[in-house]
Amino acid sequence: MTNLANLRIVLDHTSHPGNIGAAARAMKTMSIENLCLVAPKSFPDSVAYARASGATDVLDEATCHQTLANALEPCQRIFATSARARHLSLPVLDARAAGEAIVCALQQGQQVAVVFGNEQHGLSNTDIQHCHQHIIIPTSTVYGSLNLASAVQIICYEIFQHITTPTEIATTIPAPHIEQERLYQHLLNMLQAIDYLHPVRSAKLHQKLKVILQQCSLTEEQIRIVRGVLTHIEKRSEQAQHA
Amino acid sequence: MTNLANLRIVLDHTSHPGNIGAAARAMKTMSIENLCLVAPKSFPDSVAYARASGATDVLDEATCHQTLANALEPCQRIFATSARARHLSLPVLDARAAGEAIVCALQQGQQVAVVFGNEQHGLSNTDIQHCHQHIIIPTSTVYGSLNLASAVQIICYEIFQHITTPTEIATTIPAPHIEQERLYQHLLNMLQAIDYLHPVRSAKLHQKLKVILQQCSLTEEQIRIVRGVLTHIEKRSEQAQHA
Repeated sequence: MTNLANLRIVLDHTSHPGNIGAAARAMKTMSIENLCLVAPKSFPDSVAYARASGATDVLDEATCHQTLANALEPCQRIFATSARARHLSLPVLDARAAGEAIVCALQQGQQVAVVFGNEQHGLSNTDIQHCHQHIIIPTSTVYGSLNLASAVQIICYEIFQHITTPTEIATTIPAPHIEQERLYQHLLNMLQAIDYLHPVRSAKLHQKLKVILQQCSLTEEQIRIVRGVLTHIEKRSEQAQHA
Repeated sequence: MTNLANLRIVLDHTSHPGNIGAAARAMKTMSIENLCLVAPKSFPDSVAYARASGATDVLDEATCHQTLANALEPCQRIFATSARARHLSLPVLDARAAGEAIVCALQQGQQVAVVFGNEQHGLSNTDIQHCHQHIIIPTSTVYGSLNLASAVQIICYEIFQHITTPTEIATTIPAPHIEQERLYQHLLNMLQAIDYLHPVRSAKLHQKLKVILQQCSLTEEQIRIVRGVLTHIEKRSEQAQHA
């Protein structure tokens, strides 16, 4: 059973309200209705409503968030879309494979997000670090500038294509994004407590540790185990300092 | 060899110039540049140029025709797109199968057209009679109102999918098993050094930690990073004991 209510389309820092409306329409044609807006430049906006055509209900029910992290809090599987390849390489899927992976996660009952960046700048590296996988829509090498709503349309189309065909069910269900974030913060705190993080090199190291955690997609129980270890190390470090 | 110059996208009686521009952009992102306009309401038009973004050359080179029959004159294989099923039943393909059929015809050296009707009324039955096959883009049964440029985007995307090899999935390559084992042993040693492993409960915990590491499938670089942390914790623990 694929519950599309567990899928959110997240538009991050969208500049043009027309694109928000066109994205809502694109979503609804593919039975996807859960729209999250992160710091849109202008919303609600009459231009968005005009472009949404018969999908104004998707705009009415859209949620607005201050930060991307906030929009992703309950999510267990997060996909970033981007035109460019990235240094900080998450595993990459093309749009077709992504449609299948998204439906597979939904069939497991996971909360899933697909994140689309700003029209000019796409997603920042910081944004990408919230995500588990990177979706690339194959385009012309000469001109790859997909309109935002067109990108949403293709991804939603690919998801819709896979809804009728059940795909294989995998095993572990990752903890929500907020738990993964807490684990990451706990890890950084521990590394500071034991004087491991070097002020200069640590920014890059932070990124790499984040990628490792994203890649692991730990379950809630596994996070408890790891945080148990982190807490133990912190306590010993504290005791050693007071000894 | 697929010669995309032999493929024309035909927009019949388009009402909104913005849709013409957006369709041109959608085409160009998928390496398709041959646009034919049949009796557009307004063209050339600054709104079309604004929406075309970097694909204004497609608009510059678009041809205008008085009738659909005229636009289709040299074509050997003609596909009609339509949201609705039709009385006059041509053979029907979904978008994905159509992508394959179109590329197949192009590879045979045929002149191919894909025809899109007016935004409100689609293609008339008379228009449809010019065509050999009928493409339906699968959509929600509740709301199937695809924007014209979105429909062009999906069809061009499906064509492009069949002329490119699938994107290489650049998943990260995990370190060899022996490196994963060494990491696991290092982790256990560290946990013993900091008195974390309880003699009774540790067998079960060993298993769970092992599963976590398996699941992570770390790369060689990631293993180096993690082992760096483990070594640091061990050293501090040793120093604390000798302090």
